[in-house]
This record gives sequence, C-alpha cells and structure tokens, in this order.
Amino acid sequence: MEKEHAFTMEQVGDIERELRYISSIVKQKGREILADFPITPPQFVALQWLNEDGDMTIGELSNKMYLACSTTTDLIDRMEANELVERVRDTSDRRVVRIHLMSKGKSIIEEVLEARRHYLAEVLTHFSEQDVTDLARTLQILHNEMKRDQS
Amino acid sequence: MEKEHAFTMEQVGDIERELRYISSIVKQKGREILADFPITPPQFVALQWLNEDGDMTIGELSNKMYLACSTTTDLIDRMEANELVERVRDTSDRRVVRIHLMSKGKSIIEEVLEARRHYLAEVLTHFSEQDVTDLARTLQILHNEMKRDQS
Repeated sequence: MEKEHAFTMEQVGDIERELRYISSIVKQKGREILADFPITPPQFVALQWLNEDGDMTIGELSNKMYLACSTTTDLIDRMEANELVERVRDTSDRRVVRIHLMSKGKSIIEEVLEARRHYLAEVLTHFSEQDVTDLARTLQILHNEMKRDQS
Repeated sequence: MEKEHAFTMEQVGDIERELRYISSIVKQKGREILADFPITPPQFVALQWLNEDGDMTIGELSNKMYLACSTTTDLIDRMEANELVERVRDTSDRRVVRIHLMSKGKSIIEEVLEARRHYLAEVLTHFSEQDVTDLARTLQILHNEMKRDQS
C-alpha cells in the first residue's frame, strides 16, 4: 500500500488536542493581561492587525478579523472616540478611507504584546535550545500551511 | 555575562506572534465547523471537557472553562434541555451532583473533533515526517509548561 502521508492519525489527534488546549490557555492568559489595559479583546485584535499590517480599510480589517463590516464599523467608531485610531482619507483617491493607528493605540498595543512575550518567556524557561528552535520553526510552517489552506 | 535562557527575545516574539495567528485561524475554522452542528462554541468547549475528563461537578467544569459557576449553570441547563448532558447524583454522597455526557452529546462532540482532525490532516499534508514529529513534541512540552505556570 502506498504511503500517503508523513503523519499518523494518532499524531493528528495529538496535535489537534494540544492546539485546542494551548489556544484556550493563551486566550485566558490574554484576557488576564488585557484586564490591566483600557481595551477590550476585539479592540486588541484590531490594534494588533493595524500595528502589524499598517493602515487599512474597514473591509480589509473585517476580513482579517472574520467580522461583518457593520460590526467592524461599530468597533472602530468606539476606538476612534477613545483616540486609539483615526479615519484617514487617501490623498490620491478621496473616496478611500483607511483606519490609522494613533500614538495612544500604538503604545497600548506594544505594552500588551510585551506582556504577552513576558508570559511566554516564562513558559519557555525550561525549554532546551533545540526545542525552542523546533517550536518556532514548526509553528511558522503550520501557520504558512494554514494560510495556504485558506486561500 | 551568564547565559540565562535557551532562547532569544526574537524567538519569543516569533513564537508569541505565530501562536496568536494560529489560534485565530483555529478559532475561525472551529466556528465554521460548528456551523454544521446543533451546538454553540461554549457548548463545544463544555462537551470537549466532559468527553476528555469524564463526569465532573459544575465547579470543576467552571474552572476548566474559566467561567463563573452561574454562567456554567445556565450553559448546562440549556445543554440538559437539549439532551446533550444530564445531572447525575453521586451514589455514595447524594449532595454531590455531576454533569454526565449523554449519547447525543458524545456523538456530536466526536463528529466535531473528527472534522477538526480532518482539517488539520489537510494542513499537515505538506509537512515532512520530522516536522510533524517536532511539532507534536514541542506543542506537548509547551502545553505542559503552560499548565505548570498556571499551578
């Protein structure tokens, strides 16, 4: 019989379960961290995308957040009122409006990400050098393959 | 200067970011899968714990789900009405009530997990044998270290 895959179904089951558990802990830890900051979980996700990918339209942000445009619009309205972001008109095409991260939003998202890295550094304390390298490498591959699956 | 850790801050940043992206994709994929089943995302999480760890009290389930007992009680009330779970009195201590997975709940959670494994198997198609092994191994270590950090 031809070998079809480089993995067993037992490995797939293990990886599915570990990802489910890890996501749940990361989500809870993320909530605990956000409790010290004046932003909500969806605001964190929006700030994260604006910080990493730069200015974008409501439509582009909605795609990244898997939200309806109307939901994203409401979210951005509240964030604009709190001076976390601002709407900026494209100078060459005045019909296009993009969301821009303001300095208050930038400083909050960077502090939140720093707190998340601090937590992760604690968790990685007992890892060997090889395990850290393997984890970083295989997560990168997993993420790329998940993106490929989406497109 | 003494070497303190087996990782660089750049690796921590990379791993934090990849985990954030992967969790977001897994969450969205999980939602898409649940759309084909008659349960909500919190019901999925409750069924998952009952399936993996067996009968437990509302208090134990609340801890695992990071929810207030009153929220878990409401969730379990609806799930009991839908015949996914039932409340069972301990035979040796009648004051203790545990939540028990019913056959309908069991069959739904197993189908959902199978759909999640099917998705993951697709994503792993282009992985080498070594990368699957390294991913499974390092995720297991990460999960264990996260649990240790929580306790």
